[in-house]
Amino acid sequence: MPYRYLFFNDYSEGAHPRILNALNKANSTQEMGYGEDGFCAEATRLLRAKLDNERAQVHFVSGGTQANLITLASMLKPFESVIAAATAHINVHEAGAVEATGHKIHNVPSLDGKLTPSAIQEVVSAHTDEHMVKPRVVFLSQATELGTIYTKTELEAISKVCRTVGLFLYLDGARLGSALASSGADMTLSDIAQLTDLFYIGGTKNGLLLGEAIVIVNPALQENFRYHLKQRGALLAKGRILGIQFSELFRDDLFFEIAHHANDMAQILSRGIEACGYTFLVKTPTNQIFPILLYAPVQK
Amino acid sequence: MPYRYLFFNDYSEGAHPRILNALNKANSTQEMGYGEDGFCAEATRLLRAKLDNERAQVHFVSGGTQANLITLASMLKPFESVIAAATAHINVHEAGAVEATGHKIHNVPSLDGKLTPSAIQEVVSAHTDEHMVKPRVVFLSQATELGTIYTKTELEAISKVCRTVGLFLYLDGARLGSALASSGADMTLSDIAQLTDLFYIGGTKNGLLLGEAIVIVNPALQENFRYHLKQRGALLAKGRILGIQFSELFRDDLFFEIAHHANDMAQILSRGIEACGYTFLVKTPTNQIFPILLYAPVQK
Amino acid sequence: MPYRYLFFNDYSEGAHPRILNALNKANSTQEMGYGEDGFCAEATRLLRAKLDNERAQVHFVSGGTQANLITLASMLKPFESVIAAATAHINVHEAGAVEATGHKIHNVPSLDGKLTPSAIQEVVSAHTDEHMVKPRVVFLSQATELGTIYTKTELEAISKVCRTVGLFLYLDGARLGSALASSGADMTLSDIAQLTDLFYIGGTKNGLLLGEAIVIVNPALQENFRYHLKQRGALLAKGRILGIQFSELFRDDLFFEIAHHANDMAQILSRGIEACGYTFLVKTPTNQIFPILLYAPVQK
Amino acid sequence: MPYRYLFFNDYSEGAHPRILNALNKANSTQEMGYGEDGFCAEATRLLRAKLDNERAQVHFVSGGTQANLITLASMLKPFESVIAAATAHINVHEAGAVEATGHKIHNVPSLDGKLTPSAIQEVVSAHTDEHMVKPRVVFLSQATELGTIYTKTELEAISKVCRTVGLFLYLDGARLGSALASSGADMTLSDIAQLTDLFYIGGTKNGLLLGEAIVIVNPALQENFRYHLKQRGALLAKGRILGIQFSELFRDDLFFEIAHHANDMAQILSRGIEACGYTFLVKTPTNQIFPILLYAPVQK
Repeated sequence: MPYRYLFFNDYSEGAHPRILNALNKANSTQEMGYGEDGFCAEATRLLRAKLDNERAQVHFVSGGTQANLITLASMLKPFESVIAAATAHINVHEAGAVEATGHKIHNVPSLDGKLTPSAIQEVVSAHTDEHMVKPRVVFLSQATELGTIYTKTELEAISKVCRTVGLFLYLDGARLGSALASSGADMTLSDIAQLTDLFYIGGTKNGLLLGEAIVIVNPALQENFRYHLKQRGALLAKGRILGIQFSELFRDDLFFEIAHHANDMAQILSRGIEACGYTFLVKTPTNQIFPILLYAPVQK
Repeated sequence: MPYRYLFFNDYSEGAHPRILNALNKANSTQEMGYGEDGFCAEATRLLRAKLDNERAQVHFVSGGTQANLITLASMLKPFESVIAAATAHINVHEAGAVEATGHKIHNVPSLDGKLTPSAIQEVVSAHTDEHMVKPRVVFLSQATELGTIYTKTELEAISKVCRTVGLFLYLDGARLGSALASSGADMTLSDIAQLTDLFYIGGTKNGLLLGEAIVIVNPALQENFRYHLKQRGALLAKGRILGIQFSELFRDDLFFEIAHHANDMAQILSRGIEACGYTFLVKTPTNQIFPILLYAPVQK
Repeated sequence: MPYRYLFFNDYSEGAHPRILNALNKANSTQEMGYGEDGFCAEATRLLRAKLDNERAQVHFVSGGTQANLITLASMLKPFESVIAAATAHINVHEAGAVEATGHKIHNVPSLDGKLTPSAIQEVVSAHTDEHMVKPRVVFLSQATELGTIYTKTELEAISKVCRTVGLFLYLDGARLGSALASSGADMTLSDIAQLTDLFYIGGTKNGLLLGEAIVIVNPALQENFRYHLKQRGALLAKGRILGIQFSELFRDDLFFEIAHHANDMAQILSRGIEACGYTFLVKTPTNQIFPILLYAPVQK
Repeated sequence: MPYRYLFFNDYSEGAHPRILNALNKANSTQEMGYGEDGFCAEATRLLRAKLDNERAQVHFVSGGTQANLITLASMLKPFESVIAAATAHINVHEAGAVEATGHKIHNVPSLDGKLTPSAIQEVVSAHTDEHMVKPRVVFLSQATELGTIYTKTELEAISKVCRTVGLFLYLDGARLGSALASSGADMTLSDIAQLTDLFYIGGTKNGLLLGEAIVIVNPALQENFRYHLKQRGALLAKGRILGIQFSELFRDDLFFEIAHHANDMAQILSRGIEACGYTFLVKTPTNQIFPILLYAPVQK
């Protein structure tokens, strides 16, 4: 390979200027620690409004792997397991973080990074007694790790099968902004909140220095959640810095503005690569594109 | 109780202005993710110089509980345990974070928050076979959770007993700045590095937005450490924000300047409270003071 | 020490002849595996009758540490903890088995190996928020590890405080036979079942080759328990061998007969040692006696 | 389904008469507890002779899931994982026992229940950095869960790839007797010991009441193993009952005699079913046969 092309990604720079500005402005205000400050309260208020759900619980953490391992561990008894696509972040790129909390992940083969109701049903049907784990949570990523997205119809169908067979539905939203802002998108944050039990909204890859907002919709999963945060080292002493950033992100439509911009830039890049004759692993409407550059472009 | 006095603490505000300024300045530089950026490399270089140890491994994480649970889990086999004072942060204020990784903590009674060589030796002597856990790590805090500090002679004695009986010595430095800058202090960062196997330098409570620097001195503990970080959700995508802050903190003596200031303010407060006739739980030279205010002051 | 006296203990021989005989007799009967056989069903029926509780769930496992780690893990959420005497078997002689399932054990100092309602209340009162673990189970041993026993009045008082503050009460009955058969005893198996949420009846130290019977009284703790057994490696393929033994043990009063004999022998030994002028760590009515033999007997 | 055929299995009865007889005979001998008795020492001596390896460490436990979870946990650091066939017992029929100790299992698709060097190599090659787990142990079953067996050539090839890339090779021998005694077999116990790092010899499914013999060949894995046994609840107080049984099993060739008999009976059954026109999932030389009986036999 004579050349190596390095495409930087959605976390190669710092924060959106408005985010940094908000941190600068709030710096000398005195507040309580560990997320019990006024900024986190304000961010929660703004998010609940976007979600059309006043009873959703909101918690802010530092990163996506942290969000995944804590929420999943909080939903599971020792013998319960998680159903996820084989390409899911928790299955391949979290160094066994979920297993380290004691739980098995089923890895369902998937060409486009997406799960289907029938694949979920199949895993459930295959686990019938105490010699096997008991599937309890379905893990989805929106956008998926391949950059594809679930349509509203697809998510509704998965949500329905989960409620029918008694599974919790969890959505990893590390790139939820990009998904919601993509050309094919037909969902709102409020839709996500209605169709899932628990999800998180990614900030790190959408303009923040760091931060993900965990949203617990299902009341049965809300009790004592801060114990889980503390136990896994996720309760920042200056939790305010997450509240400040998320307040700014959801004060108006900055969250969507940043996501739209990222998608637009990816599409420009995508069209350029396509024009050079390269193909892609899958077609994606989001800011993740996977051109296959190993070989010379196909001659037109 | 007709009145409630609320004394804010060392994490009630944002960052030291120079720290924020550094974040602003570095914001649009493009860097690799997950701590493999130039800022983290620079911070490591600066820290190694302060430590007089070019082979120390340095890793940056978000908070103290996270630092403790990851480092301890990385040092222990499943049946090994940690010796700590009953008042140690890991024993009382981390929601069972260390036990959640599978390990027992011995809690040694202590009036001043400090361990002694004989107390350590006693725990070791009481654990003789496979029906019991096997003590493997000694956990100290400097400053302790009560605000007291170990002298160099005391730390040398503990270090010696650890090396003699085959224990790792780990130092929780959440408030190491305050300890090193206190009036009674007789140690440098380099001394700490020589006497321990692994420790961390607290940034959150000494001027940063967030961040602790884990220093692995013992080469036997360095291998594959980044796997532990990733698995516990501690590898920030934008790890650069920790590198930027620690570079600024150790570029010159800002770390010590902030700590001196905190100690000075605490001593002013301490003298004022004392003048009013109140007593203290223990006498401390650091920025943690524990006046006993429940009752009326003693009449002079 | 010129002489070393080796007193064999309650597990130095095989099984009571009637137990072995039952195993011989049932050997060629064909049965289902994993505890779903007719012998386990029969043992359950016999035990429920002794307990005056038709809805108690009964499970048979191989040993005491196994029983403790599985039942405690089944009762606890990740951030919940166990209150136990400092001398409790789970605290000192199980190689960190409970912590290995992720949970902290509070060790309450105790001179006679027993917990008190006020000591329990004190631990609960000291744990007030999510920076600390949340106490959830009280662990008692009957007889205790020192050979002492709880009276009915004492157990009632502990049971009451547990129900008032929302704790589960768990009783380790490795030596329950000896306790129930001791001179000071004022309780029946039925009393134990009424005052606790979950307990186990020790067989290994009361005449069996191996085996402990876990009794789950509280219906809230019964669901899916066999998953916990399987996951921790406790579901024997030939679970029948536990059913056969426990059926024989509780078909009539063999369980109590063996226990009475053990206590009687211990008391003879005890009186002899006392007559020689030695003193004891504590006075015990059971088959555990702890004479202090290090030095010459006190001259009369 | 108008008819239900129930074929009992290799654990539907008690023990081989010689085993029970040995237990009867040894019953009143007084011995030390927890596996430190003369019978366990004798069984170890007999096994080492069969293995041609005087330095192999031998430990006796109650069951296969217990053997698997303890040995694997003892070989792995928190971030390390196990490579196994998708059909492996640890992957499907142990209720997540290995994950409950914190470790991921890779499930490699396999039609005949067997792993191949290239499949192993592929998993290793796909795991390149700390964002992923680090494969460390290869798990094989001999016979496999489908009743097939590895030939000596196959096991040598797998052993070689493991040693080349730095993986431990672990063999689950729940049905090792049946494998070694099968018509296609070309290996001895000594071959197994030379080609693996650690394995266990199944007793429960080969004539014992209960019991598996863990053999640790690799000296690097021997240290402190009894701590692991104790911590997971596997150290029986009357460990003697495992020693007595294994001594009898390996005093002469009873182990192989029982296995031969089981294989012979299975082959008779197999030929009968085949004669009726039914086909099999896979052809197996051992005592596990999987005829497909759902539909009417194929007409000849």
